[in-house]
Amino acid sequence: MTKYIAVIGPAVCSSAERDDAYKIGEMLAARESVLICGGGSGVMEAAAQGAHSANGVVIGILPGNDHTAGNPFLTYAIASGLGEARNAIIARTADTLIAVGGEYGTLSEIALAMKMGKKVILLNSWQLQPARPADRIPLIAHSAAEAVEIAIGRHSS
Amino acid sequence: MTKYIAVIGPAVCSSAERDDAYKIGEMLAARESVLICGGGSGVMEAAAQGAHSANGVVIGILPGNDHTAGNPFLTYAIASGLGEARNAIIARTADTLIAVGGEYGTLSEIALAMKMGKKVILLNSWQLQPARPADRIPLIAHSAAEAVEIAIGRHSS
Amino acid sequence: MTKYIAVIGPAVCSSAERDDAYKIGEMLAARESVLICGGGSGVMEAAAQGAHSANGVVIGILPGNDHTAGNPFLTYAIASGLGEARNAIIARTADTLIAVGGEYGTLSEIALAMKMGKKVILLNSWQLQPARPADRIPLIAHSAAEAVEIAIGRHSS
Amino acid sequence: MTKYIAVIGPAVCSSAERDDAYKIGEMLAARESVLICGGGSGVMEAAAQGAHSANGVVIGILPGNDHTAGNPFLTYAIASGLGEARNAIIARTADTLIAVGGEYGTLSEIALAMKMGKKVILLNSWQLQPARPADRIPLIAHSAAEAVEIAIGRHSS
Repeated sequence: MTKYIAVIGPAVCSSAERDDAYKIGEMLAARESVLICGGGSGVMEAAAQGAHSANGVVIGILPGNDHTAGNPFLTYAIASGLGEARNAIIARTADTLIAVGGEYGTLSEIALAMKMGKKVILLNSWQLQPARPADRIPLIAHSAAEAVEIAIGRHSS
Repeated sequence: MTKYIAVIGPAVCSSAERDDAYKIGEMLAARESVLICGGGSGVMEAAAQGAHSANGVVIGILPGNDHTAGNPFLTYAIASGLGEARNAIIARTADTLIAVGGEYGTLSEIALAMKMGKKVILLNSWQLQPARPADRIPLIAHSAAEAVEIAIGRHSS
Repeated sequence: MTKYIAVIGPAVCSSAERDDAYKIGEMLAARESVLICGGGSGVMEAAAQGAHSANGVVIGILPGNDHTAGNPFLTYAIASGLGEARNAIIARTADTLIAVGGEYGTLSEIALAMKMGKKVILLNSWQLQPARPADRIPLIAHSAAEAVEIAIGRHSS
Repeated sequence: MTKYIAVIGPAVCSSAERDDAYKIGEMLAARESVLICGGGSGVMEAAAQGAHSANGVVIGILPGNDHTAGNPFLTYAIASGLGEARNAIIARTADTLIAVGGEYGTLSEIALAMKMGKKVILLNSWQLQPARPADRIPLIAHSAAEAVEIAIGRHSS
């Protein structure tokens, strides 16, 4: 079954984050995952562009009311009209989430996805120390390739 | 630009409604629209099946938490987790909506879409008499073909 | 148990609708119901003002992001940030809904509430003819007093 | 103007967390804040019980469909029907949020509230190290009394 992988991260990002997000999007498309993202700029756009360059499918779940308002690399876009509450839909819809960098919106997606029991992978993102030491924490990747490998396994070619 | 057309209607429907929804899905796919639906059974499934038979793209916006829980003819599915509030996302995301038959969930989508200024077309659906006589009412189609024609224009073949 | 009664209707309304909404709010407060509304102007404000005048509690469920942005007669306000999708929360939270007049936003609340199995009472509001003749329709009131009586029973004093 | 203060935290909590939440609820009520919470058990219930004991008003924003399903100390309850997406409404509605302990649902509320620019105060809660060092972090309190003081100022009595 096709896996839905979200790539999440800030709308304003560093060039290193942009490069990582692009590579992750490209690799996910090569493995025929559907890329879910928030549809905006920064990490969201770079991941979409990477997937688009590899003929992958990208679905943007937008906060606003206009399905044409996302970044130009989305294959399809959902106009949620929910503002930040759309982060819960990204977390719900994805089987696995990869965070690249991240501000507080990204952190909310990480947290919602962990709450929902999803697999969450962090690349140069938040460092989290739970209030309850027994709580599991997201998986840590050290490169774009490792993030994809953790998400969907090594490419057997 | 690709048009997003929602086909909305009851999860339990008559065979006539099923036939109309199938034909509408098929014709929309032939015209390269993206079909938006609620992802469930009945009219939603018949429209998705029709589009699927014509190699169209169908996006289901599901009320529940599992993106794999929609009908088998969805190309992609969004797990909104919002229950009936997902009807607002269907209305927001679609450029135009076609209702085939319809119970109260359908009526809520018709109403939300009219509120949002979308084009709404009714085929054997609710008859509405506004409290304010000046309020515009949805467009009425008398056949599946006419519904599609009103939605996206006559097929030039 | 305290009943939650929503009064729904257009943000721009006639003076007759305003009078009816005010009276309904006043009578609901006298019967110690909690008044739920969308928190805006028109029917929402008149109902809130009526309840406020009788020392009732009014909870506004706002579409926007600022809990102080509702009409001045709300006792408490929820900033949903969901836009029109907040109509589903009004329908969910109310035990019973009374529509006074109404445009398409009101119709969406009527429809969502009927879908959820709530008691819905219409006063000079939409006339609805279902696509499926067997579908139940909302109750019809002919005056503000009758609407309240249907909602929570005659005042025994 | 009345301040809306949310107390957020896990549905299953330690007795120390329960004590802190109770005291915070009590102190907020004494200062005439409206207490916003998720309406469930654990920290949510203890804060509600504390406010209730001091004749405060508590509004629970519930994830489910039944407004009577919250803990017994809620003054009013909203049935959002949105599941975890209701966390965004808690963050939107509150002027200030105090987290006591916390699992991932709490973390999502902290993150959403920070994203929205709200004041957020942590008591024995998550330790957060942003991916972007310049990002502000929530305020830290070391006792229930200090959390309330940071939230609404010292009690002048």
